[in-house]
This record gives sequence, structure tokens and C-alpha cells, in this order.
Amino acid sequence: MELKALVYAQSGGPTSVINASAYGVIREGQARGYRVLAAIGGIEGILNESLVDLADEDDEQIELLKHTPAAAFGSCRKKMPRFEQDASPYEAILKIFRKYNVKCFVYNGGNDSMNTCAKIAAFFARNHYDCNVMGVPKTIDNDLLGTDHAPGYGSAAKMIATTMREIALDTSVYAKGRVTVVEIMGRDAGWLTASGALSLVGGPGPDLVYVPEIPFDTDSFLRACKSIYDTKQTCLVAVSEGIRDKDGSYVCSQAKTDGKDAFNNIQLGGVGIYLASKITQETGIKTRAIELSLMQRCAAHIASLTDVQEAEQVGRHAVAFADEGMSGKMVTILRTQSPNYEATYGVAELALVASGTQSMPAAFLSEDGCHVTQAYLDYALPLIAGETVQTYQNGLPVYANLKKRFITK
Amino acid sequence: MELKALVYAQSGGPTSVINASAYGVIREGQARGYRVLAAIGGIEGILNESLVDLADEDDEQIELLKHTPAAAFGSCRKKMPRFEQDASPYEAILKIFRKYNVKCFVYNGGNDSMNTCAKIAAFFARNHYDCNVMGVPKTIDNDLLGTDHAPGYGSAAKMIATTMREIALDTSVYAKGRVTVVEIMGRDAGWLTASGALSLVGGPGPDLVYVPEIPFDTDSFLRACKSIYDTKQTCLVAVSEGIRDKDGSYVCSQAKTDGKDAFNNIQLGGVGIYLASKITQETGIKTRAIELSLMQRCAAHIASLTDVQEAEQVGRHAVAFADEGMSGKMVTILRTQSPNYEATYGVAELALVASGTQSMPAAFLSEDGCHVTQAYLDYALPLIAGETVQTYQNGLPVYANLKKRFITK
Repeated sequence: MELKALVYAQSGGPTSVINASAYGVIREGQARGYRVLAAIGGIEGILNESLVDLADEDDEQIELLKHTPAAAFGSCRKKMPRFEQDASPYEAILKIFRKYNVKCFVYNGGNDSMNTCAKIAAFFARNHYDCNVMGVPKTIDNDLLGTDHAPGYGSAAKMIATTMREIALDTSVYAKGRVTVVEIMGRDAGWLTASGALSLVGGPGPDLVYVPEIPFDTDSFLRACKSIYDTKQTCLVAVSEGIRDKDGSYVCSQAKTDGKDAFNNIQLGGVGIYLASKITQETGIKTRAIELSLMQRCAAHIASLTDVQEAEQVGRHAVAFADEGMSGKMVTILRTQSPNYEATYGVAELALVASGTQSMPAAFLSEDGCHVTQAYLDYALPLIAGETVQTYQNGLPVYANLKKRFITK
Repeated sequence: MELKALVYAQSGGPTSVINASAYGVIREGQARGYRVLAAIGGIEGILNESLVDLADEDDEQIELLKHTPAAAFGSCRKKMPRFEQDASPYEAILKIFRKYNVKCFVYNGGNDSMNTCAKIAAFFARNHYDCNVMGVPKTIDNDLLGTDHAPGYGSAAKMIATTMREIALDTSVYAKGRVTVVEIMGRDAGWLTASGALSLVGGPGPDLVYVPEIPFDTDSFLRACKSIYDTKQTCLVAVSEGIRDKDGSYVCSQAKTDGKDAFNNIQLGGVGIYLASKITQETGIKTRAIELSLMQRCAAHIASLTDVQEAEQVGRHAVAFADEGMSGKMVTILRTQSPNYEATYGVAELALVASGTQSMPAAFLSEDGCHVTQAYLDYALPLIAGETVQTYQNGLPVYANLKKRFITK
């Protein structure tokens, strides 16, 4: 009988640790006797039959995956139709899976990917195709339902908090400084922006923190900045790209349209540069806007060891659970109630995860709307704990470079 | 007789390793029997008599200076008058130095600071005040005359090259990607932007590199981006904030004024966002602009060990040379001609260092104007070699937190 195969694919935006999950899936799959295949470019890679056999890769490169950022197997943003309306892509997947005797499918991504994953699981069940489908969570945004936190968040938070601390030092060297506005990712939830405040635990950090969960009021913002600046001659602000005003409109979209017409073809910066400009306009204080941009999700050189280890574990658990007969679930991380932080692994229904996003709870945000609470710090500090041991060559981190030779169709 | 004192001060923009030089000055000064004082806020700190005695600081905090970014003793941008025209600030310094029996003055900064330093040395000499004045180089820009390279450059280069490698991975995960334009510091010289290309040694990195030394032509730029994008479906560009057109005008100033009037009070982004918008406008290709901003000069968590060690050594040598009777010079780093990289230390006249800036030599830049040469890589690779061992607490790097209690006047 042909060897049972496992197909693994990655989807959505990259993180610093998604490849650590890939590593977990590969090693656990191999240990359990699967032929481990990866689709290149997410679900599109399956549809194109762009498959690689991990047995073809050098062991050393597989080990490097643990510390390599971005999506080593490529990604996609494809939205699958409902199979009741258009079954053709599902049938194409089924055909390819039958061809390679795929008995386990592991999809690694955020809530859109879990939606895809749920649909595939349902289609396989309806067609009595015996293949267990498991989701592996991944998102720096930390807004996945059903899990205490998502792999990727801890490393992004560690990068953001480290950078906020370094910027806080840098911006306080002159007798007369500026207001520095640091724009942080997060369209819908403030988890990443909040993590900037972790730098205040034992060091300098942001004076003000603004998240999308709390309606943004420009006047209070300006007053708060001015008051801090007047006292300290410097002021550091962490602001989420997704902050909205009381009507629910993105402040960022004001940035894109203010003044507009004559300027339609000039791409303005985001909310950070907009607010910095507002401060100068309204108060005359010098400002600087900084956008942490992609570095938040790819700075594997400052990854959290806890995050890397958990990312590997969710990958391993996905395979173990599937191998033991489970399907249609996403692996979740649970936090034990012990005095010291400890993670265990469970599952959530894919459909639940796909149904929405997880905002920050009110208990994590201070009443004045511009700080986080101790409860948030207690929640997040364990997630950034520990440093990875990176391989360096020529003074630079060495990242995996896979051959990715397609299997002959 | 009163103990001889040494005054140390920092000036200009911070770097990741200026405090390693401070560490070298402090330890060497103490070893040579000086009472080591630091002025807070550069030359202004001397004029205000804002002095701290390093003997008051905890040893542990002094040790942390070696790995702490920014200017731990504050900085200033004060320009001193010529003393022939206005001797009053010089007389004020002299009075304070006499009061504390200062026999050695070490000023740590870039070429403007070396200018200040030269004037003070000359004034002391004219007034027969027996105090040796030495400059310690510092700049991430690497544009100081008279030295093979400047402390601060290696760490900035390591941060930039690491980040370019991580961004290169992140931006190549989708089948259809973007042109990503990364804006890097350097108004007058391309050293920092060039360092992005170090990531190509053993890994992915920028496809195109644009520095101020070569006149920037927008049409060739657009053609080059499009051609690379058409082949790879992704394109990564490193561009210096200081690029200029053939008439010598900053491309960045076009970004600031294009469309203008109606928009006067909106702060546009810099050259990166301008060029990204141009690409989209002219070719329809999706783009992203990233500005590495302050992180280039404060990301001590990814500092170069070589840079940290050399920064300490230039500090130590400044004190040693002064103690042996030298004055009016800046410590320089020399590269030995051995097959393996090795640094030795010499001196240059302060007046020479203050007289201009050091551009990249033509041999370091490729003829097509958008790449660096192997000669540059050979020059720069040793400067980013080695990783520091940082102290971490709560998942974050621990940086020095000095008491800085002013000496009672």
C-alpha cells in the first residue's frame, strides 16, 4: 500500500515563528510515518499541484526553519467559495489528495485560513474522504478566537517592546526633545500596540498607548501629548494603525483624504505621520513619526523563545491530534492556572475560530483610554520570555534556504 | 593637591555604541587615577555645570553602559562661536575646569563635535591651561574623515543588513508581490544604505541600492524596478534619504513640495514613500515604503560585537593618549593589512576631521549606479562581525539606568 501522506501549507501574512510550526508539523509527521509534503503558496499550491517532499530537503535546513521568519513555503490570500455553490476547487483538491494518498492536511494561518480549512474538512466529510484536517494558528495580531494567544504574537510583542525601549532611550537624550509617534500594526485589535507598554516593566517606554478598542479623540490626544511634553520635554506615543473615532471611522482614513484632491496621487503615510503632523500644527511641538512596519512580523533575530517553542508545539499537536483521528479543529494554546506561566494544548472548532476576531478585554485597558493595565502586563509578559539561540554567519542571522523542488506531477 | 579630574561628554545624534566609548573612557580614566566626571547634555552641560561623578554610580550600571544605546549622558547640538569673536563660553568652560582641576577633556561625537573640540583645545593652549583635549569618534553615518570607519557604523550596518534580509524573506512569500522601497539614513553619504547589501552575502537582500554619491535618475530607477519585478514578482530597494538628482537637489525635497500649496501643513513622508508612490503611479505595480528611522541608531540588541569592542577601545585610547600628553586630536581606527581584519588605533588632527565628510569611494559603487561592489563588502563585513551577549530581564534587554546626581556646585 502506498505510504500515507501529510500535506502542510501556510497562508496569510508571515510571522517570525510560522516556520517553527512548520518544523513541528514536519518532525511530528515524519515521526508518525507520514510522507510529509508541503504545498507552495498555500491552498493555491495545492490547486496547482505545486508540492515538495520534505524528505528531499537537507536536515540542516529543516532545523533552521525553527528560527526563520516569513513563510518558507509561500503564502496566499485566496478566498475559497462555498462548496455548495462551486465545488470545483474542492474536487480538484480531493483529486490531488487521492493521488498522493493524503490522510492528513494541516493548514497554518489566521482566521480566514481557518475558514478555508473548515470548508475543506466539511467537503471531505461529505464525500467520505478519509483525511483529517487540522488548523494551526498563526497571527502576530493575536486576535484569534478560541486560543489564549496565537503563535507569532509573542515574538512581535518582544520586537515591539524592545524597540519601544530603545526608541525611548534614543528620544530622551536632548534637553529639548520631540513628541515621537510610533505606529504599530493592528487594524481591529490593540494587542500589538499594547505590547509596546511591556517595555515599561523595568525600563523606559511609551507615555501613551492608543488602541482600536477605545474610540480615539484627537483633542484629548493632543492635550495628553502636550501635557507630558511640557513636563518631560519628550513624549513617546504608541498608536495602533487601526484607531477609530467615535463614529467608527479609521483615523487613518482621515490621513489618506485630508487636504486631498490636488494631491490624489501622492501616497501619504499612515496614522502615525498624520497625528505627528497634527501635533506640530496644533501645538508647535516638534514631532517624529515612526512606523514599525513589516519588521514587526519578520524580526526573527529578536524572537521570543516561548513563542518559538509554542509554535513548534502547536504544529506537533496538530499532527498528533489528526493522527489520532481528530478533524475540523484548530489547535489552541491554554494557559494553566499555576502561579508560573505554563502552556498546554487543546482544540477549538474551526468554524468558531473563523467566525470573528478577539479584541482586547476591557480589563486590559485603563479607564483613561491611553494606557494598559497590570492585568495586561501579567498576561503578556510570559509570552515574550526567553531568547532564541540564532545561528550567525558573516555577522548575520542564517535563515533556512530550502530547495523546494516540485514533485513531478 | 586636589585630584586631577577628567571630563567626558557626548554630542550629536546617539548610536548603539557611544556608551561603550563612555565605558572605555570611564574605566581607563579611573585606572589612570582621574576623578572621572561626565557633563550632562554635551558642551551645554559643562556650561551649566551639570556634572556627575562616575564614582557615584553603581558598578553594575557602568558595566551595562557597554551595551546600552543612545547617549546615556545626554547630548546637544550647540554650535560654539569662534573664540576670537566671542570668548565668553570658552572662559566659562575654563573657569569650571579650573574649579574641578580638569586635566583631561574627552568629547565624543561626529565632525561638528570635533570642531567644538578643536576650538576648546586651541583656547586652552592660547591661555596656557594645562588640559589635554581629545575627540572620540561616533557616527552611524561613517562619514568621518581621518579614520577607517567610525564606531556606531558597524552596529547600524548590522541592524540594517539583518533587517533587509528579514524584509527580503517577508516580501517574497506571495506569488505576486510588490516593490518594497526601504529608506535608510544618510544625508550626504551612502555608507548606511550600502550596508543593506551585506545581507546578500549568504542570503536574500536588496535588488537595488541607491546612494547620494551617484546622481539619481527617476526614469532609470523606474525601469530597473519594473524589470526586476517582471522577472521575480517582487523587488526590494534600499535607498538613501539623501539621494539627489543630477542638479544636486534632494529627491526628498521633491517629495516634500510636489503638489504643495494646498497641502503645506501636512507632513509628507520622505523619499521612500515618494518613490513608492511614483512606481505605483507610473507602472501600476503595488508598492510598500518602509523607513528604518531611529531604529538604525538605537537597536543595541543587534549591535556588532566588533563595533562595541572598538567603541570601548577608542574611549580607552583617548584617555591614554591624553594622559601621555597628547591634545587636539581625535582617536582613529586603522585597519591593518593582515589577511584577517584587525584594528589598531591612531590619531588625526581635530581640525582635519572637522573640515568635511567622507563619501564612499567610487571603487565601492558599481558602474550601473545601483549596486555596491565586492570591495565594499570586503570593507564592511568585518565591521558587523560578532554578536554581543545582552542581559535580558522579563524578556527584554536591560539597559543602564544611571543615577546622574549632579555634583553640588
